[in-house]
Amino acid sequence: MPHAKTSPRTRAAAWHRVHAHAEALNKRHMREMFAADADRAARMQARMGPVFVDYSKNRIDETGLSALCELADASHLRRAIDAMFAGAPINATEHRAALHTALRAPRTPALIVDGEDVSAAVHAELDRLSDFAEAVRDGTWTGFSGQPVRNIVNIGIGGSDLGPRMVCDALRPLTHPRLRTHFVANVDGARITGLLRQLDPASTLFVIASKTFTTQETLTNAATARQWFLDQGGREADIARHFVAVSTNAEAVAAFGIDTANMFGFWDWVGGRYSLWSAIGLPIMLAVGPAAFRELLAGAHAMDVHFRTAPWRDNLPVLLALIGVWYVNGLGARTHMVAPYDHGLRRLPGYLQQLDMESNGKGTTAAGQPVEGATGPVVWGASGINGQHAFYQLLHQGTQLIPADFIVSLRNPNSPPTHHRIVLANCIAQAQALMTGRTPAEARAEMQAAGIAPARIAELLAHRSFPGNRPTNLILLDALTPHSLGALLAMYEHKVFTQGVLWGVNSFDQWGVELGKQLARRIEAAFADGDYPADADASTRHLIDLARAALAET
Amino acid sequence: MPHAKTSPRTRAAAWHRVHAHAEALNKRHMREMFAADADRAARMQARMGPVFVDYSKNRIDETGLSALCELADASHLRRAIDAMFAGAPINATEHRAALHTALRAPRTPALIVDGEDVSAAVHAELDRLSDFAEAVRDGTWTGFSGQPVRNIVNIGIGGSDLGPRMVCDALRPLTHPRLRTHFVANVDGARITGLLRQLDPASTLFVIASKTFTTQETLTNAATARQWFLDQGGREADIARHFVAVSTNAEAVAAFGIDTANMFGFWDWVGGRYSLWSAIGLPIMLAVGPAAFRELLAGAHAMDVHFRTAPWRDNLPVLLALIGVWYVNGLGARTHMVAPYDHGLRRLPGYLQQLDMESNGKGTTAAGQPVEGATGPVVWGASGINGQHAFYQLLHQGTQLIPADFIVSLRNPNSPPTHHRIVLANCIAQAQALMTGRTPAEARAEMQAAGIAPARIAELLAHRSFPGNRPTNLILLDALTPHSLGALLAMYEHKVFTQGVLWGVNSFDQWGVELGKQLARRIEAAFADGDYPADADASTRHLIDLARAALAET
Repeated sequence: MPHAKTSPRTRAAAWHRVHAHAEALNKRHMREMFAADADRAARMQARMGPVFVDYSKNRIDETGLSALCELADASHLRRAIDAMFAGAPINATEHRAALHTALRAPRTPALIVDGEDVSAAVHAELDRLSDFAEAVRDGTWTGFSGQPVRNIVNIGIGGSDLGPRMVCDALRPLTHPRLRTHFVANVDGARITGLLRQLDPASTLFVIASKTFTTQETLTNAATARQWFLDQGGREADIARHFVAVSTNAEAVAAFGIDTANMFGFWDWVGGRYSLWSAIGLPIMLAVGPAAFRELLAGAHAMDVHFRTAPWRDNLPVLLALIGVWYVNGLGARTHMVAPYDHGLRRLPGYLQQLDMESNGKGTTAAGQPVEGATGPVVWGASGINGQHAFYQLLHQGTQLIPADFIVSLRNPNSPPTHHRIVLANCIAQAQALMTGRTPAEARAEMQAAGIAPARIAELLAHRSFPGNRPTNLILLDALTPHSLGALLAMYEHKVFTQGVLWGVNSFDQWGVELGKQLARRIEAAFADGDYPADADASTRHLIDLARAALAET
Repeated sequence: MPHAKTSPRTRAAAWHRVHAHAEALNKRHMREMFAADADRAARMQARMGPVFVDYSKNRIDETGLSALCELADASHLRRAIDAMFAGAPINATEHRAALHTALRAPRTPALIVDGEDVSAAVHAELDRLSDFAEAVRDGTWTGFSGQPVRNIVNIGIGGSDLGPRMVCDALRPLTHPRLRTHFVANVDGARITGLLRQLDPASTLFVIASKTFTTQETLTNAATARQWFLDQGGREADIARHFVAVSTNAEAVAAFGIDTANMFGFWDWVGGRYSLWSAIGLPIMLAVGPAAFRELLAGAHAMDVHFRTAPWRDNLPVLLALIGVWYVNGLGARTHMVAPYDHGLRRLPGYLQQLDMESNGKGTTAAGQPVEGATGPVVWGASGINGQHAFYQLLHQGTQLIPADFIVSLRNPNSPPTHHRIVLANCIAQAQALMTGRTPAEARAEMQAAGIAPARIAELLAHRSFPGNRPTNLILLDALTPHSLGALLAMYEHKVFTQGVLWGVNSFDQWGVELGKQLARRIEAAFADGDYPADADASTRHLIDLARAALAET
């Protein structure tokens, strides 16, 4: 564990400087900072290929950035990055590497970890996936009646759902015209049964994505899909033409009826929330094709190289991480808002929710100690244009500090210019409005100029004033392509990693998900036998009674 | 304004008691509270018709609830409720009533406001909507080639999108089998052009929802839809068979080509985020029919009656509001999480985001003073089952307090029992796990029982322990029906209203949305003429340059 080796004294001093300067800067308005420094905007921007970030509209200055860079050094960020890319077991609680970066590395040079050539294994699997995807796309892969595939249903949850779904939506204009992708995650049967009613089994391909092939929600949905397939005229022997698996459990996959030749795997060093680059990305590859999928990987790899090599002050993931830490630990922010202005990126906030909150929503350091101060914020958001008509009121005039990322493509070939200029204007304007605000004097002058009566001005003045000083990062893509999307997602992965290093947590485990699962199994047993779990409180017991009575009616 | 008349001294004392007791209770674990009080679960629950709320898993006790009820009294909540229902101009900054409750009141008794019979007007419009919806549903309304409508495209944004869309999804099993509803909000043209490619103009009905018929995003999308319709073989004279409006701007509607006989209106006293009960709900009525729509209204009305009449301690909206205020102002929570476990309710968090944050994301009291302390939290969330595999890690082991509402239907006729029992078990189990947590001693004992080696136990102990004491409200619906959904949504509306009264803000205006719009118009002008807006900072100027250059390429 690289972060276990830092000098506590150096780190504490660096944290102290961050806190002290954040406090000193707390009352300073960004308006003043812009007015006092003509070069601020030009200096506080950075680019990696198709990704440009303007981070000048943040409540930070050069001293603050320097303090944060020192904190990164004191946290041995450089060593941590090198360890991750080298395949060291940085996921210490699970004794594993975190090598999602290897999924998008070129075929050569070889990356040897524990005696295995990881690159060779990755590319062998990529080639298998590509062959399968090509067969489906060109129509040589046919269903039981000889029809090509028209509908692809991915059954998976968490990382087996959010990543592929978000990317398929983002790249929808590139989707093969014959193919539609569907994603089933929720085990509420209304979802799978509602979807199946619209499908023809003869032209439907199911991708069952569960590494262990035991995920309860996924296997329950898969069983319902399988039964539907058989009820609708498919035979047991046809299952292998209509179901494939992303899994490593060959026995269970075969028992389901899937040909293990169509089972695609990945490795222990790929966490679920980092897995879209692996076989979990199969729906993406089916939809947009192997070439576009490899462009996605190439974009991510370009960001990987940038992250490994760029100085902190030019390094997009590091800059975003440092600024985020500034708000969480220096200024007490508890959430981070993500507003994509491209319709194609509307599911990005949901994807980042998992990536960030499951990685850094930790109260215990990698070394097993309680963390000091706050760690991961709540990540939330929605399409920016829609959000302007929904929750932006609170961003502008609410009582809390909410740092935000605005994301927009400069070029959008799928949007007519009459539409696209509105999107760009709004995205830029909201960032400006949040930063500058509107003083009471300005609000008064505007109302006077509009001929509003003095009594009405007095009544409205406070409501039409805006404090401003609310921060945004403006993240521009040249255009939304597989390459730029790959770079964008890798940027966020490494931002999360960097923050994990600064906070000293292991960003690659998720022990917090196990207790609820365990209690759910006990409660399901209680539905069956009526015996309360021994640890159930009175509220839980009553809820079990209500649920059990309702279930007994069906 | 009822809340302007409260005695500041009484209110300050009530707030003081709330703060003091919250501090006193801050370290108390809910486990202890359950252990010390066998009646806690039975006492801390309430029901209104099909909506049952267990609020026992909150970090509060009888003293705290009493202090909050006193705060409600000191804030003259009763008077505020009466004023709202009577049509008093409680939206003081806009000199308007907030009478969404009138939209779901029965035809009699008459409600006279400013000399107008509001009930009569509401029911006359409801009847017009019903007649139109029936004609579309039964196929007597036909398109230019004589075909019935198959696809309904709602073009609207904010309240003209989120409410109808969420309800249409929730009630999808009741949708007319010939009809599909689509919702276009984002002005990114990729959305409307991508959708139109799938549609046949001869069987498509567009609903243009913009009260003023000037909302830029909506009118831009509507213009693109209109042009597509003409390009695809429709004639100008056919527009009236394929486009209807929810608006009050007859002139603009007629200029668009819509027959004003098919223009449906609503009133100044209906805010956008409270408008799904009005003509804005037309897509709902088209999808599920007038009878089901009236059931939705009836469910909301039942909650209205409950809200007006139930004592605070039995009053669902008031209880949820008080508990929310306890967390925001007493315990420093900054967000509120909503996790619907029904797939049909997956868009509820996005809907509540607007309802809550646009209403109470205010820093100025209704009287124009800066608020003291915090107001509206960030409302966020996602489908609960999916969230368990995504962000629940942070709920369980992160460093901040996140109060949550879990919502689930006891009966789900659209979900096979093998699925539904998993949903119920997980929902109940997560609430239990968040409350009880797992002590290090318990974690150790479990690992020892599982035969894990002592060294590994030592390594994992901190990571497999859960602090617990994390609150949830468990909200159970008998089943997801139009009636229960109406009641659920009205419950949240009144929760938000109650919190607005306690915080002293006007929950019905949204001045915070105007500055961004204004700056966007200036930036759009700058794209055209190249002159920077006078108030643009250096960052905004540079972003304008980048956008302008990209736009010039097309």
